[in-house]
Amino acid sequence: MRTTVGIIGAGPAGLLLARLLHNAGIDSVVLESRDRAYVEHRQRAGILEQGTVDVLRAAGAGARMDREGLRHDGIELRFAGRRHRVDFPALTGGRSVTVYAQTEVCKDLIARRLEEGGPLLFEAEALAVEDAESQRPRVRFRHAGRQDVLECAYVVGCDGFRGVTRGVFPTSSRVYERTYPYAWLGILADVAPSHDELVYARHDRGFALLSMRSPSVSRLYLQVAADTDADDWTDEAVWDELERRLETGDDWRLERGPVTQKSVTPMRSYVHEPMRHGRVLLAGDAAHIVPPTGAKGLNLAVGDVVTLARALVHERDTGSSELLETYSATCLRRVWQAERFSYDLTTLLHRDPADTPFDARLQLARLDRITSHRGAETDLAEAYTGFPLDA
Amino acid sequence: MRTTVGIIGAGPAGLLLARLLHNAGIDSVVLESRDRAYVEHRQRAGILEQGTVDVLRAAGAGARMDREGLRHDGIELRFAGRRHRVDFPALTGGRSVTVYAQTEVCKDLIARRLEEGGPLLFEAEALAVEDAESQRPRVRFRHAGRQDVLECAYVVGCDGFRGVTRGVFPTSSRVYERTYPYAWLGILADVAPSHDELVYARHDRGFALLSMRSPSVSRLYLQVAADTDADDWTDEAVWDELERRLETGDDWRLERGPVTQKSVTPMRSYVHEPMRHGRVLLAGDAAHIVPPTGAKGLNLAVGDVVTLARALVHERDTGSSELLETYSATCLRRVWQAERFSYDLTTLLHRDPADTPFDARLQLARLDRITSHRGAETDLAEAYTGFPLDA
Repeated sequence: MRTTVGIIGAGPAGLLLARLLHNAGIDSVVLESRDRAYVEHRQRAGILEQGTVDVLRAAGAGARMDREGLRHDGIELRFAGRRHRVDFPALTGGRSVTVYAQTEVCKDLIARRLEEGGPLLFEAEALAVEDAESQRPRVRFRHAGRQDVLECAYVVGCDGFRGVTRGVFPTSSRVYERTYPYAWLGILADVAPSHDELVYARHDRGFALLSMRSPSVSRLYLQVAADTDADDWTDEAVWDELERRLETGDDWRLERGPVTQKSVTPMRSYVHEPMRHGRVLLAGDAAHIVPPTGAKGLNLAVGDVVTLARALVHERDTGSSELLETYSATCLRRVWQAERFSYDLTTLLHRDPADTPFDARLQLARLDRITSHRGAETDLAEAYTGFPLDA
Repeated sequence: MRTTVGIIGAGPAGLLLARLLHNAGIDSVVLESRDRAYVEHRQRAGILEQGTVDVLRAAGAGARMDREGLRHDGIELRFAGRRHRVDFPALTGGRSVTVYAQTEVCKDLIARRLEEGGPLLFEAEALAVEDAESQRPRVRFRHAGRQDVLECAYVVGCDGFRGVTRGVFPTSSRVYERTYPYAWLGILADVAPSHDELVYARHDRGFALLSMRSPSVSRLYLQVAADTDADDWTDEAVWDELERRLETGDDWRLERGPVTQKSVTPMRSYVHEPMRHGRVLLAGDAAHIVPPTGAKGLNLAVGDVVTLARALVHERDTGSSELLETYSATCLRRVWQAERFSYDLTTLLHRDPADTPFDARLQLARLDRITSHRGAETDLAEAYTGFPLDA
């Protein structure tokens, strides 16, 4: 098989890249190791930055998002018995975010890809990327019981944290990493969200987050120890603990409903530098992981592939590879801002077992600052609603 | 001996409190364990917030400060070969800071105190504070070879981190503390400052700060290991290392001059809660310590005693002790903001031996954010130029 751009992975990064390239008249092949049902149902993020919404819409993949997505103009912070709403449009000159699950983004992009007949192979497992520094890098993969080779002008690894693409990078590549001594226990529940915006709670017992996937599906999280088994928690225990940490009271109740999924999400920060080696490029989780607190993972992936599609089109149109050569540096500046923000929001709200009483007071002083100082609150609101795609 | 307010310690907190009380017609006695020459020459901070300048001026102790103090409208940040000026007035609606050494503030306040004949006893060592919960708390002290007792309506401990006043507080008091795995090696040098504003440098070799005490006296600091002996560094080695970390170049040189003092300053964060027990109150370093990076120590002390003088005058005028009862909470909110800021500025710029490569990148991402995002830069500028005295 031959194509211009070989894309490994049919998550949002790979699917959106294929869509952007198709729209620009550049052909690509997407290889996905899982089957379609798996890709369309794995639970991931659900918060789209304004810039992500704009990109999906402009790419012709925003029709259902525009119908079903929920525009959110703020979040609520809860701590020490206090409640504070961060008003995004007022602080950012009109920006907001949209709640629309990553699974839905993937369904929409898969549907468009299949409609347009573009190659998208499920259960096609990439085995290795080869000849990164040549003019024709290759992907060896296994599909329908046999091995095959995809010859490309470029290979893009959108194959996530455990993907094979990074294996072709030289050992001089640098890895920046941090793990956190806690995880998220997340539930999906068939019940209308008890609050119309996300509620982020810093509590002495640990972090909690009230989120949602739709007007009838709640998504809730509890900070738990990193080695927690989701089965150790009964549904009732989860709801009870959520009530405590979200500090429900007479004026506000947490509605319970059937729990349809319960799982533990690890927390990790990770950056692989550079994001390009020869004609092989990384995008999304293959290059960087953020803890989910800031909802930046999907949005970073979108930023990467927008930058990459632009660079590939620029080379096709002008013959100049300058944008491909700066691809890594361009993305990494935004990536590090997202890493910083995700780290800060995570450590602002979670209790680390190693924290001293001094650390706990610092958290409260930070929350006090954010909720009483416009500069600090603007910094948070602008980071949450999104870093510029070009920065 | 009897007085209304017994003040232990003739640092800026004790001296300014005595001055504010004198101006309001409330008598006090100041006990200082050291001699006058020591108090007037120990090197401490040198940056006065706008609010501190205003207070000293209004208290009638600002004449020389107004003549000799240097108004600074910004600081420079250096990192990764970049230079960025933080413009205070532009970011804060006109606020600035004033460089005027703490020793000079003390000299001015001592001179005023002695002029007005107010009791200020040097070499008067407080031994213990007693009967905090009674109507007549007492200070036992030793002066001129004999023991004496000072009977007061209130005792205020302005006796610093190693003072005796905290000893009268119950064991239920809480202490919040953090030490840092580094210290500052500071020099005073008889040479005009090589830059007209402070330069804060984050360098892979460690933090450096170019500061000044006057137009002809430079004050410079290097991050060193916590157990450093100042004598291990020759003057030349200090200058050489300053040049490296401050990234001097063709466009900017570091002028060297005779080093007149060289010492190591430890880095510590410390808060004692509450700051009041019965009729005994703490102010300044007796209640809280910050690392020197944010130049907040002296300014916090000023905030404490302004709040305290107001509360004492309020009680004298109205008979209500309500402001005394809220003294601790009022101060602590500002204290924790200063603790947060001092911690953040310290960890932003210093290299911690335990830092991972990820942590180092976070520092650079934070500096990138501060120097490219107005909200983040405003947050820094407003914190640096001062928290409101009433908050």
